[in-house]
Formats: sequence, C-alpha cells, structure tokens
Amino acid sequence: MRLFFLLLLCSACAMAQEKPVYTDARNFQFIGKGLPTDPMYVRLDTVQTKPMTDAVKYLSTHSAGIAVLFQTNSPYIRARWQLAKRQFYANITPIAHSGLDLYCLNKGRWQWCGMGRPGDRDTLNDAPLVANMDTAMKQFLLYLPIYNQVTSLEIGVAPGTTIARIEKPAVDTAKRVVIYGSSILQGASATRAGMAYPSILQRKTGWEFINLGFSGNGKMEFPVAELLATMPAKVFVLDCIPNPSADEIRERAYPFIKHLLTKRPGVPILLVETAPREQGYFDLKVAQVVKEKNNVIRDVYIKLKGEGFKQLYYLPGKDLIGHDHEATIDGTHLTDIGFMRQAEVMLPLLQQLMKKSASAK
Amino acid sequence: MRLFFLLLLCSACAMAQEKPVYTDARNFQFIGKGLPTDPMYVRLDTVQTKPMTDAVKYLSTHSAGIAVLFQTNSPYIRARWQLAKRQFYANITPIAHSGLDLYCLNKGRWQWCGMGRPGDRDTLNDAPLVANMDTAMKQFLLYLPIYNQVTSLEIGVAPGTTIARIEKPAVDTAKRVVIYGSSILQGASATRAGMAYPSILQRKTGWEFINLGFSGNGKMEFPVAELLATMPAKVFVLDCIPNPSADEIRERAYPFIKHLLTKRPGVPILLVETAPREQGYFDLKVAQVVKEKNNVIRDVYIKLKGEGFKQLYYLPGKDLIGHDHEATIDGTHLTDIGFMRQAEVMLPLLQQLMKKSASAK
Repeated sequence: MRLFFLLLLCSACAMAQEKPVYTDARNFQFIGKGLPTDPMYVRLDTVQTKPMTDAVKYLSTHSAGIAVLFQTNSPYIRARWQLAKRQFYANITPIAHSGLDLYCLNKGRWQWCGMGRPGDRDTLNDAPLVANMDTAMKQFLLYLPIYNQVTSLEIGVAPGTTIARIEKPAVDTAKRVVIYGSSILQGASATRAGMAYPSILQRKTGWEFINLGFSGNGKMEFPVAELLATMPAKVFVLDCIPNPSADEIRERAYPFIKHLLTKRPGVPILLVETAPREQGYFDLKVAQVVKEKNNVIRDVYIKLKGEGFKQLYYLPGKDLIGHDHEATIDGTHLTDIGFMRQAEVMLPLLQQLMKKSASAK
Repeated sequence: MRLFFLLLLCSACAMAQEKPVYTDARNFQFIGKGLPTDPMYVRLDTVQTKPMTDAVKYLSTHSAGIAVLFQTNSPYIRARWQLAKRQFYANITPIAHSGLDLYCLNKGRWQWCGMGRPGDRDTLNDAPLVANMDTAMKQFLLYLPIYNQVTSLEIGVAPGTTIARIEKPAVDTAKRVVIYGSSILQGASATRAGMAYPSILQRKTGWEFINLGFSGNGKMEFPVAELLATMPAKVFVLDCIPNPSADEIRERAYPFIKHLLTKRPGVPILLVETAPREQGYFDLKVAQVVKEKNNVIRDVYIKLKGEGFKQLYYLPGKDLIGHDHEATIDGTHLTDIGFMRQAEVMLPLLQQLMKKSASAK
C-alpha cells in the first residue's frame, strides 16, 4: 500500500516536471485575416495601412478575430505568447484584451474548452489552456487577443503526442464575410475573444469572418474602402456608424460604399445602423447624436438604392441588442449578452446574403 | 450671429468649469448588507468576522451587492470614491471589480443608466456616471465594486439642485433573501456590479438581496452558519458547493445547514448544487470533482429531509447556466449570460419560497 502511494507520488512529480513540447503556431492554419500579412499576427500590415490614419495603423496590429486551427491528441494544451505591451481597459477583461480563447470540435460543433490567462504586468505569458483530456485526436480553434498585438505564439503539448495542421478543418474559408466597424465589432466588451459577434457567427455558420473593427476609428476613410475592395469576400458588412460623426457620415459614406459596390459587383453589402446607446435613454444629447447618425446613413442607403445598386442591404439598429437595457457594460459596448443578441439578429440575414452571393456570377 | 456663438461658447465654458456639489453617500440608504457594520462599506465588519478565516475576513470587506439609494433632480451625477487598493483580475473587468454601476427608476422599473470607470493605478476615482438628463426628480440605485473595498464615497450633483434620501424606495427590504456562497455569487465574472445574479434578482423582484459570496472561500465553516442565523432573512440560499472539497462538504454541510434550520424555523433554505464546469466536458478530473461534490450535498439534503425539515429545498445545478457552453469566461465563472440564466432559473423558485416564508408564522 505504501509502495503504491510512493509510485503514485512519483508519477505525479513526473507529470508536474514534464516539459511540454512547444510548436510555433505559424506552422498551422490561421483564419480571420482579410489578406496575408507580414508579420503574421496582425490584421493589416504596414504596407496595407500606409494611406490610413495612425490610429488605424496601430489598431490593425490588434489580433481581433484571428484564430489558429490545429489538431492534437495531447492530454493537455498550453500556450506561450508574447504581447506587444501591457494593456488596461476599464471595460474589458484581461482575458479578452490580452488572453487566449480555446474551442474544440465536438460532434461537429465548436465547443468552448479553455482559455489562456494573461498576467498583470508581464507581456510574456505561459499558461495552461486545458488539461486531463482523453487522448483521442481532436480539432482545436484558438482565438488570439482582441485588444493587443501578439508578437509570438507557441502551442505546448505533451512529449510523444502529435500536434499538426488540420487537413480539412470545420471552417469553410470559401464562405467569407468581411466586416468593417468600430470598437464594438473589435470585441469590446466581450468577456473573451470568442464572444465578439463575428466569432460567434463564425462558429454558428462554419464560415470565415474577418473582423476589421478599429476601436473609435471605424470612420469610413476612403483608403479603407480601397483596401476592403481588394479582399476576398462573399459578403461585406459595414457596421461602422458608431464612430464617425453625422457630418463625417454625410461626407464619407456615399463615396466609401459606392466604391465597394462598384469594385465588387455581385457581392452583397449589408449596412448596419448603430444600436441605441443605453445611456441615451437618460442622456438627451447622446440619444440625439445616435438618431441623427442613423438618419444620415439611411439617406445614403436610399440614395444608392435609387441609383440601382441591388446588392446593398440595410439592417436597422433598434432590435440589435434587445430591449431589457442589460446588454452593455457602459451603454455603448456590448457584453456577451449583447453580442449573442446581435449575432442572432444578423444570422438569418447573413444566411440569405450568402445564398445571393453564391448564386451571383 | 457672432454674438450668439460667443454666448454659446461662454455658457459651454461655464458648464465645463461648474464644480459639482458632493455629498457623503452615508447620508443615504444602503441595501445589500446582512447586518449593520462599522465601517459602512463592508459586508461584514471585524467584530462579525472574528471567528472566521483570514480569507473570509478580507473578502467580507469587498462591497459586492451593496448599493446606495438616493434621489436627485440634477442633470448630471458624478461620484468620487476611494478604493482600498489597486486590483487585478484576469477574468473581471475593472468596472466590475473597482467601478460603480448606476440604475434609475423608470416607470416603476430599475433601468441601467450609467457607470463609474475606475483608473488603472489610482485608487481615488472621480468620474461622471450620467449627464445631460432632464431635471425631473428621479430615484437612483448605485451598486458598489464587487471585488474591492470602498473606503469613502461621495455623490456629486449640479449646484442648486437637490439630492436626498428616498422616502419610500422601490426596494422592499422586508422581503430579504440572504445568499451565501463562492466567487460566482460574489459576482465573478459579471461585466459590472449590477449583473451579479443577486443584483439581477433584486431588480426583477423588488426585494433586497444580501450577497455573501466569498471568492474561493465559501467553504461552510461553522462560524459562518452562526452569523447567518443572526441575519434578518425571509429566505436563505446556500450556493456554496463550488468552493469546498467533497470531503469538506461531507464534514461541514450537515452541521452548517442543520444549525441554520434549527435556529430559523419557518425560514425556507434553498440549497443550490454547483453548475457544471465548462472545462469539465474535456477535463475528466474537473468533471469528476463536480459530480462528486453534488452527490455529497444531495445526500446531506436527503438526510436532513429524512429528519423532517420541511423548510429545506434543493436546486440541481444542471440547468443553471444553459446548455450552449457559452455562459462562462473561464469554465467556472459566469458571464452576464450565465448570471442572467441563473437568475431566470431561480426567480420562480424564490417567488414560491417567499410566499411560503410569508405564510409561516
């Protein structure tokens, strides 16, 4: 009996001391990038953002919506990731802005199975994601931080186990939706990366979603439209009314949208109003600003429809986040409740648009 | 025309420079405290926690579930609050662990209207909660931080406006539910204080809820039962299975619950199983631990029912957080989605128990 416990203890020590084998994540497949970039873990690189504002240049280094696909039969998975800097957001959890979020394919569906917890001050993190699994080969999807830049990422598995690219992953990258917008789109204030609404939609549909949310800076500058027009996409979503002023929308929305419509005929474009700001039920100025911006973008939509652009669609904001006033953290930024609701509203619409896109030549 | 803009500019400057008038929040009514304490902004004071563990002593200083009620006709509300220390939680937003969360009574219902954003490093915060309101007199409910201690709190309003106690607030403090439990109960990982499940239930019912969640330390030590038994309550909820080990539950649950049952005859006690851990669908050890703990507490429940305690009720954990595996941030701690689901499951049950309590002598 004593011997048995001794053996058990030794085996526990061996487990604790066992060094995981790390593989550079760049060996695997990535989803969520509009175009190839150098370096890997950014949404747009410096060549692509050259004509854009400094804010967009910076925010495009955040890895919002980027995820890596791999398979392994290891009983545990760890990750070692280097962040560009320490971040602080009063309205975002560190797990969301600087951590990792892991899903596993279970009976054909992506199911949450673990996360990577970032430290307070260190920018180099090494953390367990999931442990004590059976050793069947499984497919994993690991979302990167939504409000930070990752400069390196390695996946750690048990020695003697296999980690590899997935030959046919459960993500149909031919069905690709590119979304452009604000901090809300970027993922503020999901509790973890997988709960930003494009990531929810990605798991619900099995398609690839590209998250081009630029916090406070989804302002419809023309060079952004020019870059969007070069990205492979079956559907475009423009959820960019939260950031520009009514005057900026008045000035920029028409040329921005018309450029995309003209350059990409046959590709449906969904224009999304900004959802009500929850503080706007009390703050009369906020309410007025939201109303005016939605009025301006609706006018632009009507004008372009009048010019015969059949591929343009419109989603009013009023039902996007429900009506119980509990879907935001700060009146503006959606919590997981808000993102789940927005995903549910958008899902049937996007399914229709994907069909239309597929039937277009 | 020039004169008009000059006047407008001056009036804007005056607004910006106007100094709010601050009132110490201790002049107003507080809800969410099990017993009176000294100082005000703690859940239990050092006299009450004398026989408890150091961890419970510390965690009871966190102001989870405590809220202040006041009325004002000011067009804006600010707050100045001093925190005991800087906090960092990878799985909690700063707004939740160290910030404020404001609701306003609108047509008889508490509606979210603003929040107070804490800084990164400073422990003294001074922030706007809501602005640009009409100047009708309104009732407000301000939730304190869930994972920090507040050492002072002042509410700022416009000079010349009124801020005062509410004579008959829309919270029925005679209908009082005292809940004891873990970090989940304390509010990890709600995005803001008002989304911890007792606070959701408080707004849905109009009753008072006392949040005695002690992160990692809701372990059923006997002195806690002795203190609970002294608290005014119409219903007790014991949501304390997440923290103790199966052995601790085996040893402590029976005397803990029996003490409360015996000291407070006629007061319904709801025993809540721990919800599934989301990582437990992959981590076989975690799944086993959860299963064993729920088995042990169910046995204790059956034993006490066998002894004739009719006031004891039981809520299985399996449906508490839904079945889409998206209700937690880290497998254990509920997001706003999880808290909303748990509140919805518990609401009809608590309504029944409140009726039973009211009909008991």
